[in-house]
Amino acid sequence: MPTTLPPVSAHVESHFQSGESVRDVVIGMSDGLTVPFALAAGLSGAVSSTHLIVIAGLAEIAAGSIAMGLGGYLAAQGDAEHFASERAREEREIIERTRDEEEEIYEIFERYGVEREESRPVLEALKRKPTAWVDFMMSFELGLEEPRAGRARQSALTIAVSYIAGGMVPLLPYILMSSASEALLVSVGVTLVALFVFGGVKGRLTGSGTWKCALQTTFIGGLAAAAAFGLAKLFNRI
Amino acid sequence: MPTTLPPVSAHVESHFQSGESVRDVVIGMSDGLTVPFALAAGLSGAVSSTHLIVIAGLAEIAAGSIAMGLGGYLAAQGDAEHFASERAREEREIIERTRDEEEEIYEIFERYGVEREESRPVLEALKRKPTAWVDFMMSFELGLEEPRAGRARQSALTIAVSYIAGGMVPLLPYILMSSASEALLVSVGVTLVALFVFGGVKGRLTGSGTWKCALQTTFIGGLAAAAAFGLAKLFNRI
Repeated sequence: MPTTLPPVSAHVESHFQSGESVRDVVIGMSDGLTVPFALAAGLSGAVSSTHLIVIAGLAEIAAGSIAMGLGGYLAAQGDAEHFASERAREEREIIERTRDEEEEIYEIFERYGVEREESRPVLEALKRKPTAWVDFMMSFELGLEEPRAGRARQSALTIAVSYIAGGMVPLLPYILMSSASEALLVSVGVTLVALFVFGGVKGRLTGSGTWKCALQTTFIGGLAAAAAFGLAKLFNRI
Repeated sequence: MPTTLPPVSAHVESHFQSGESVRDVVIGMSDGLTVPFALAAGLSGAVSSTHLIVIAGLAEIAAGSIAMGLGGYLAAQGDAEHFASERAREEREIIERTRDEEEEIYEIFERYGVEREESRPVLEALKRKPTAWVDFMMSFELGLEEPRAGRARQSALTIAVSYIAGGMVPLLPYILMSSASEALLVSVGVTLVALFVFGGVKGRLTGSGTWKCALQTTFIGGLAAAAAFGLAKLFNRI
């Protein structure tokens, strides 16, 4: 085992982990910080009282967190069902269509320039252990990883809570202040800072660059808010 | 080649395809049909004129499509960058840490009960073709597939357009009618039908069941709208 590089299993594990909870928080919070922020900013271009903006903001946060959370739940559950049904199919196929499945293993290796006589020992080894053979086909033929149990519920909760947490940041100034134009200024300031910090943390965790991701996230939020504000101003004149 | 089962390459291809454009349309339209619908319904519980609901709805659609579209663009671009940097790392490692990488191949096969002497011919074959070796490590060690070129831009556009198309369905009654309570009834009717049809098509395309997915999608939209409506009613009294 090399000492400077992590072992294969730890390697895969770290990829797997970052593709789960971090992704759910990122999904929920990106939209939570952006859309309620932009909506509130947009409405500030059309109304002067914060009361209606708070109602719209809360309605949006409720709708968004339910839509994204339940959406995430069903997506994760769909992944789990898809995996189970594909696995059941592979289990049948290695029994009922043994020759075809053997052929598929040869074809997988041929894509990497491995000749039939070179991959045959692997095939023989897999045929000794049907469960390992099915696992092998799931990963290497279909590229499917088994979803963790309980993943769907955890994913739904993480996304929904992140959305609500993100959405309350831009809305808080409107809740605490009565003038929409003043609350807008505070909301813009606080939310751009929050987007920048969140983007930076996201970039660090996902390995796509702290500063780059901070700037990108701030840019998306700012652009969405500016577009919503401009559209509301424009439409309010009609 | 079996005649009743598709060849491995077509098999993988169909998985790949359904994981792309269909997923983007589903992502955009699910949220587009749900969140603007729920927001408009929620505001109908607080205001009587449709004017402000249309402004809020348009602001939300602008913000949501930008946030989701650009978010999708950056996510796809991030995937492409991640793939390129991991590939460059693997290319270095098979030269600089040849022994470690050989060890990793043995470990990959050992997980499936394939002994060292059985996987050695595959290792020898991969060593003849360094490019195939790197490809093999990308797929089988890291589980990464190369993103298609131009994927990021196409993904962004598909998500944004789907969001706008979805969001205009619930908003149209408010644009065409002046009474919020009347527009709400039409919007609820039209959107629940749209959610049901969209959910059914989605379930058919993704293979997760036409009727089941139709009911689930309608349920999420209805629940989000009911929650937004109730919250707005409640908060409007305070």
